[in-house]
Amino acid sequence: MPLSANNPDRTSWLHVDKNSDFPIQNIPFGVFLTRDDIITIGTRIGDTAIDLGALHQLGYFDGIPLTDDIFLQDSLNDFIADGRKTWRAVRDRIAEVFDSNNDTLKHNKSHKEIVLFRLDEIEMQLPVQIGDYTDFYSSMEHATNVGTMFRDPDNALLPNWLHIPVGYHGRSSSVIPSGIPVHRPQGQTLPNGATEPVFGPSKLVDFELEMAFITTDANDLGEPIPVDEAEEYIFGLVLLNDWSARDIQKWEYVPLGPFLAKNFATSISPWIVTLDALEPYRVESPKPVKPQLPYLKTTGKKKSFDINLEVSIQPEGSKENMVCKSNFKYMYWNISQQLAHHTINGCPVNSGDLMGSGTISGPTPDSYGSMLELTWRGENPIKLKDGTERKFINDNDTVIMRGYCEKDGTRIGFGEVSTKLLPVFKKK
Amino acid sequence: MPLSANNPDRTSWLHVDKNSDFPIQNIPFGVFLTRDDIITIGTRIGDTAIDLGALHQLGYFDGIPLTDDIFLQDSLNDFIADGRKTWRAVRDRIAEVFDSNNDTLKHNKSHKEIVLFRLDEIEMQLPVQIGDYTDFYSSMEHATNVGTMFRDPDNALLPNWLHIPVGYHGRSSSVIPSGIPVHRPQGQTLPNGATEPVFGPSKLVDFELEMAFITTDANDLGEPIPVDEAEEYIFGLVLLNDWSARDIQKWEYVPLGPFLAKNFATSISPWIVTLDALEPYRVESPKPVKPQLPYLKTTGKKKSFDINLEVSIQPEGSKENMVCKSNFKYMYWNISQQLAHHTINGCPVNSGDLMGSGTISGPTPDSYGSMLELTWRGENPIKLKDGTERKFINDNDTVIMRGYCEKDGTRIGFGEVSTKLLPVFKKK
Repeated sequence: MPLSANNPDRTSWLHVDKNSDFPIQNIPFGVFLTRDDIITIGTRIGDTAIDLGALHQLGYFDGIPLTDDIFLQDSLNDFIADGRKTWRAVRDRIAEVFDSNNDTLKHNKSHKEIVLFRLDEIEMQLPVQIGDYTDFYSSMEHATNVGTMFRDPDNALLPNWLHIPVGYHGRSSSVIPSGIPVHRPQGQTLPNGATEPVFGPSKLVDFELEMAFITTDANDLGEPIPVDEAEEYIFGLVLLNDWSARDIQKWEYVPLGPFLAKNFATSISPWIVTLDALEPYRVESPKPVKPQLPYLKTTGKKKSFDINLEVSIQPEGSKENMVCKSNFKYMYWNISQQLAHHTINGCPVNSGDLMGSGTISGPTPDSYGSMLELTWRGENPIKLKDGTERKFINDNDTVIMRGYCEKDGTRIGFGEVSTKLLPVFKKK
Repeated sequence: MPLSANNPDRTSWLHVDKNSDFPIQNIPFGVFLTRDDIITIGTRIGDTAIDLGALHQLGYFDGIPLTDDIFLQDSLNDFIADGRKTWRAVRDRIAEVFDSNNDTLKHNKSHKEIVLFRLDEIEMQLPVQIGDYTDFYSSMEHATNVGTMFRDPDNALLPNWLHIPVGYHGRSSSVIPSGIPVHRPQGQTLPNGATEPVFGPSKLVDFELEMAFITTDANDLGEPIPVDEAEEYIFGLVLLNDWSARDIQKWEYVPLGPFLAKNFATSISPWIVTLDALEPYRVESPKPVKPQLPYLKTTGKKKSFDINLEVSIQPEGSKENMVCKSNFKYMYWNISQQLAHHTINGCPVNSGDLMGSGTISGPTPDSYGSMLELTWRGENPIKLKDGTERKFINDNDTVIMRGYCEKDGTRIGFGEVSTKLLPVFKKK
């Protein structure tokens, strides 16, 4: 039975543009600072942000077991920890309150003044306090492209790749929401032909097009999560830009993996779209090339999602240039497999943990999810509308990622993650 | 001028055994659950635990700018965020209150009943809520041993090793205090000669002898910390056992580094010994083998610390067997260099972040900091007192690490991190 909040026939008394990412069928969750400098948890319909803290205080969630301050917090962690039953009840109630046929709030001017905000009246924050951030490496096309460029075109995939959803730990402290600018990192690099490293600004700053899922409290130390139960512990998804300094990465990454090449910044979109909202967009995962061990084999529902992804580069004072169109469904390893693998050794997963997909590259050259692949190490620069070229990202460029699902006339989107690259930090 | 709390001539009216790690010159910080099930921040002198929350409520910290609830918390993060000036003032005051010549608390029986606990009346907790956990790889002997075994004895150190304090991100969620047992992890491994991986319990569970430092809020996104300022942001040190599953590690770690081989558990000692308490034990760092880039060059004070380290294995129902004696001073890269490197790209460091040293192996075979090295991949098993042998760690073995400084008759120690390895987790 379809979820009530996903009813495609429902419309809202709030205005929603035809191509909006946020129809009443979406109801994502985020954290924002209001015009009164109050931090609250909210949702969004069309271009209207809705203060769930205020809505709760006014009694619109009566009957749902929620603590009084569950939405008056600076992160969604506690709400996410309440579990799927609560997420569903809240999402269903929001759909009812804003349904075209429901006049209660619609006709209550004083309540609307407290609850509703224009987007220019709020400032989006990180939606969760991230306990741990993991990044996977689950696109076969991306792993193949990187392996072809840096290792061996004939054996581009490493032997473990088709058996393991390869992943590594990232840095939580530098995960930032859309809109926060990033400085070009400095560090050690080994120039071509040199034997000694040099110090200076990275010359090869890149984006990586990713999505990420956010978990609820899942397991105790020692306890694996079975692959077919994994989605029970996934609250929703965001867009993620895994900023990367290719020259720093190349010199530092052996043998323990990327470190300073990645941990200067990771940008995410601020609205978490729930797995429930993505339900209509399930698709089959790619067929396994090799047999997978039983703990990674899924049964039942399709476990991948058809989410269109785009990346644009906008130089300062100029127009956007779309440089990549990809899709989340290209991921060889799906989110259920990623979470099952992550916990098979008993690693505990908590509310607010962030798990990135890895760069999502598709089969065609225009679907590659990084400048490294799109320009093939800079060999084929991309021409922009303003006449300039890009091998990698220039100072003062803004990188914008967008994502949306579309089916039978309903579009569920993620908005965007937009980040400007500033020059190297200078002490004031 | 020596710090007042470090005065070697001071004695306490609390009993302190001659060989105690915790004389009045130590004054470490930790978090414990009391007999009344209250969680509080405390310190320890001899075998007496001291409730700093209660001491503060009773007015013993009057005159020091502290919030009322600074010690009534389940982590030291806020206290650490108050900065070095506050840490020093509190440590000095504790030294005064428990000085043999101070009768105020000594003669106040009702206060003592509230403030003092026997060790068997409390339960030590994680001392900090760890935002991010980083693990370095800074012992040249360890990196050389591993490189000799797994790569090329003639080029055991990778080209970047002498230039970079190599590090990677670990998992915060599985960091546990001493005393919490760990289950043997399961996972994928590639048996010798096989082409397809198999699934099962790790056969090669190992310890890694490490120390770790804990930071305060240090920098904003984008801002590097100069190497000579790094210690200003380091609160103190703990012992760390970086549990490792060697067979899982070998199969998974290329190209993104260790993941499930490490993130099933990391154990730390519960008392944070402040950098101030370690002041008398500074020693020179090893002489650089190659020139180091300017951002890693330290000047002024000696930046390494002379801390004796030991590891014992205790089979169930049997005696302890010391298998390793090492020293923190062997680290090629010191903690100042590690923190400067970590932030050179602008990566933000926060209060409560944990930074492991990497396995601390010394120059002699009995100073190697892991079973992998001590038994040389299992080729030379270690004979235990009970007649059994160990290549790696067996189910129900307890691994105990200890550390202490000693100079001019004063001993400052870390206590221990003791962890039992349980068999594979079974769902009840």
